[in-house]
Amino acid sequence: MSDKIWTAALVVIGDEILSGRTQDRNIAQIASWLQVQGIRLAEVRVVSDDEDAIVEAVNALRARNDYLFTTGGIGPTHDDITVDAVAKALGVDVVVHPDARAILERYYADKPGGLTEARLRMARVPDGAELIPNRISGAPGIRHGHLFVMAGVPHITAQMLDGLTGELEGGAPLITETVGCWTAESEVADILREVESAHDDCQIGSYPFFREGRVGANFVVRSTSAEVLASAVDTLCEALGEEGHDFTPGGI
Amino acid sequence: MSDKIWTAALVVIGDEILSGRTQDRNIAQIASWLQVQGIRLAEVRVVSDDEDAIVEAVNALRARNDYLFTTGGIGPTHDDITVDAVAKALGVDVVVHPDARAILERYYADKPGGLTEARLRMARVPDGAELIPNRISGAPGIRHGHLFVMAGVPHITAQMLDGLTGELEGGAPLITETVGCWTAESEVADILREVESAHDDCQIGSYPFFREGRVGANFVVRSTSAEVLASAVDTLCEALGEEGHDFTPGGI
Repeated sequence: MSDKIWTAALVVIGDEILSGRTQDRNIAQIASWLQVQGIRLAEVRVVSDDEDAIVEAVNALRARNDYLFTTGGIGPTHDDITVDAVAKALGVDVVVHPDARAILERYYADKPGGLTEARLRMARVPDGAELIPNRISGAPGIRHGHLFVMAGVPHITAQMLDGLTGELEGGAPLITETVGCWTAESEVADILREVESAHDDCQIGSYPFFREGRVGANFVVRSTSAEVLASAVDTLCEALGEEGHDFTPGGI
Repeated sequence: MSDKIWTAALVVIGDEILSGRTQDRNIAQIASWLQVQGIRLAEVRVVSDDEDAIVEAVNALRARNDYLFTTGGIGPTHDDITVDAVAKALGVDVVVHPDARAILERYYADKPGGLTEARLRMARVPDGAELIPNRISGAPGIRHGHLFVMAGVPHITAQMLDGLTGELEGGAPLITETVGCWTAESEVADILREVESAHDDCQIGSYPFFREGRVGANFVVRSTSAEVLASAVDTLCEALGEEGHDFTPGGI
C-alpha cells in the first residue's frame, strides 16, 4: 500500500443553496463516502448557476486534487447548466450519449408527454463521458475520467455513490476514535496539543457542546494507522484521567 | 436606493465539515440572514484547518465581494487557527483585544481554572478589529472592516448575526414567491424558460420532489422588484393553467 494521500474536491452548484432555501446535504454525504474509499475531501466550493463560476471552480479544483465531484444542475430545466459548464472546463463538446438516450426513452415510454426535448437534455454529456446509473429517476450521473457529475437531490446522489463504491483508487482510509469529556475544551487545550504533537500521522479535533445544562466536548482522534490511533487515544485518556476529568471512551 | 447588487462570500473552516462528521448549518443560516439584509451570498468555500488554505480563500473571496464571513476555528484549542490565518491574509498582527480580555475575565471568574492561557487565546484578534458580542459562551466574534469572523457552533453564530442585523449596507432585498406543481419539472421546462426570459431582473429556480408516490416541483421566482415578481408569477400560473397542470400558488 502506498503512502500517497488521495484527495477529492467538490463543487456544489445551485442558487437554492446560496439563497438559504435548501440545506445542503451532499457535502457531508460525499465526505463520509469518500472517507470509506480512502480518499480525503480536501475542499468544497459552492457556486451559483452561472457558467463562468462553475468553469472557474471546476478547473481550479481538478488541477490540484485526484478526483473532482460536482452536485446539482443536471435536470431538464433552463437553470440546469452543469453539463455545458463542465464540458467547457474540460474543453470538449457536449454530445448526446446514446445509452443515456436509450435509458430516458425507456423511462419516459409510459409517461405523459414521452421523451420531450427538455427531457432529452438529460442525455447530454461532455464528449468522452461514461454514465453513472441512476435507478431512481432515469437521468444518469456522468463520469469523465476523474470527474464525477452527480445529482443535486441527495438521495439520488446517494445511490449513484453506491454504484461507485470500490471503483476509485484510494489510500489507507482515515480511521477515527472519539473520546467524550464533561469538561470545557478550554480546560484541556494543553493536553490535546501535547498528545497530537507526540504522534505523527495524528490529528485531534475538539468539538464542544452544551447539553443538559453542562458543557463538554468530544475529541476526535484521526490517523491512517491503527497503532498510532490506539497509542494517541491511550495517552489522551491517561492524561485526562490524571487531571480528574470525567471522560468517556467512544464519545458522548 | 441604488441599483448596486451587494454580495458576500463565506469561508467555512473546519476538518469536521470535510470529514463528514458534522453537517454544516452555517451556509443556509448566513445565506438566509444576508438575504434579509439585501445582500446576496455569491459563493462559499469550505477549507480545512490549514493556514495556507484559509489565507488563500479569504484573499480570493474578499477581493471580489463586498463582505466576507468566516465560520469556525475561533475556540481555545490548538486546531483553532482562524484568527492567525485571517490576520495573515489581512497583513496585520495578532493582538489581544482589551475588551475581549475583560469579557473573558468576567466570564471565567467563577469557573474552575479561571482565565487560563488557552482561554485567553479567544481574546486574540487581527489588529484593528472590533468585537461582535456573544452572549452565550463569552468568546466574541470579530469584525475587521468588511470581514466578519463568526463561530462554528450554529446557535452562537445565530446570535452574533442578530447583533449585526441592520448594521450592514445592502441593496434591495431579493424577494421570492413559490409556485408548486404536481407535474414533473421536465414537462414544464419550456414554460419556465419563457417566463424567465420575458422578465428582466427575474430568476426562476425549479426544485423537483417525490412525495406521497407522486412527482412534483416547486418553482421559486426571485426578483428585487415586487412588480416584476407579481407579473412573472401571474404569467407562470396562467401558462401552467392553460396546459392543465395542477399548480398551487405559495408552493407545495
